[in-house]
This record gives sequence, C-alpha cells and structure tokens, in this order.
Amino acid sequence: MKKLEETISALKYNEAGLIPAVIVDADDKGVLMMAWMNAESLRMTIETGRTHFWSRSRGKFWMKGESSGHTQEVKAVYTDCDADTLVIEVLQHGAACHKGYRSCFYRRLGADGNWEVIAEKVFDPEAVYKEKKKP
Amino acid sequence: MKKLEETISALKYNEAGLIPAVIVDADDKGVLMMAWMNAESLRMTIETGRTHFWSRSRGKFWMKGESSGHTQEVKAVYTDCDADTLVIEVLQHGAACHKGYRSCFYRRLGADGNWEVIAEKVFDPEAVYKEKKKP
Repeated sequence: MKKLEETISALKYNEAGLIPAVIVDADDKGVLMMAWMNAESLRMTIETGRTHFWSRSRGKFWMKGESSGHTQEVKAVYTDCDADTLVIEVLQHGAACHKGYRSCFYRRLGADGNWEVIAEKVFDPEAVYKEKKKP
Repeated sequence: MKKLEETISALKYNEAGLIPAVIVDADDKGVLMMAWMNAESLRMTIETGRTHFWSRSRGKFWMKGESSGHTQEVKAVYTDCDADTLVIEVLQHGAACHKGYRSCFYRRLGADGNWEVIAEKVFDPEAVYKEKKKP
C-alpha cells in the first residue's frame, strides 16, 4: 500500500537507519521489551502481524519467537510526537524475555542501590533454547 | 552511595554514553514518552526524584517540566535483561507531551496507512510554552 510505505518512510530513523520499538503487553499494558527496527523490519511486522526486529549485534533480521516460539501478535502500532520512537502493543505468547521472565524489565532499583528481581520466571531458558543464543 | 554509583556505572550506555529511558505512568502503566539519559542525568533523576534527561539536539541536561511545570515524580526504576534500557515509572503532573497530550504516543497506525490521533489535548501548548521550544 502506497500510503503505508510513505508513513513508514516518513519516520525518523537514527544514523544507522534504526528506530527504537517499545513492546507493550496488550493485556496489562506493561512494557515487555525494547528492541530496534529498521524500515524493512517494521514493514515485515505490519505485513505479517508478528514483531520483527533488526539485530544490531548480529546484523540481521529476527522474528521474536523464531527460536522459542514465543511470538508477539501485533495489536496496534503507535508513534510519538517526534516520530522517532514506536510503541507496539502485542499479544505475547509465552514470554518476552530470553532469561525466562514475561517482561525483560524484571529488575527494580532498590533503596540500597542494588537491582532486585521482582518477577518470577515463567519458563526455563535452558530447556527452551537448545543453543545459547538470544531469541 | 557507593553501591548506587556502581549500579549506575554498570549499565550499558551506547557509544555516545546514553541509555534510552521509557517513561511510564504509575497510574495506568501507559507509556508516556521515551528520552535519553546519561549516567549523570540518571543520578540526578534518582537523587532529586524528578526525571532528568540529556538532550542530544541541544547538548544539555533538562529536567522534564522545567518550562511547563509538568514534572514527573519518580516512583520506580527498572532495567532489562541486557541492562541497556530503563523503564521509569512516574507520577505525571500535567502532561508528558509538549504537543499538549498526556502521552507522546497519541497517534496509532490506521488500516489505511495513516497515523490517527487517538487522544485529546489536555493543555494548550501555546499558552504553556511562551517560547517555541521543547519541554
């Protein structure tokens, strides 16, 4: 669709052609994870209805859940006033975090200056990822 | 506090010394905005209990609400599995967006490929910002 192409192109990407995407849970609105997209991975996300990202460390596209089966069904895509950040509301299958937690943000800063784990694991990462790699 | 200093230093900042901070509403958990912090602005945020950011375009610190009075009281700070992103839960006074909306993410992608405004303005930006500048 021509209009969608224009809308995707008009977003503000950084010098590496990337835009941060904050993934939020459509159920409880909690932030699940943050990852980077380029125009092509955003297009794939919209077309397939499954989140796709660009891995800066691996230099390749990845679909969330491609290893773990923990895919994210896209419910809505939002942008901000500057059009340089996305919020994507998803139905999370399984869990978002490769460490086994539902959300990647499972640690809260405590009064003593340490990170405190405030969530419980919902899956065993070793059982889900046979190879040691990020989902 | 020594431990807090270590915790702040141990976060993963990008090549410019910055880390993205997703600001969420402590009331309804919605994402209000995304902005960048360096170690010093995170320290200021924790010490003062008010969000402080680093403006990449202006090359300076700014406290959210310094122009508008729309400050953010910090309720909790979270980090993710990679320790390269922050989520900060805040009590938002007024509104987060300099365009007059409570959240900066006031536009949703429609089926026709256009952004649709899905929120109502809660203040008049022209009345609040005498000079034309970002809060």
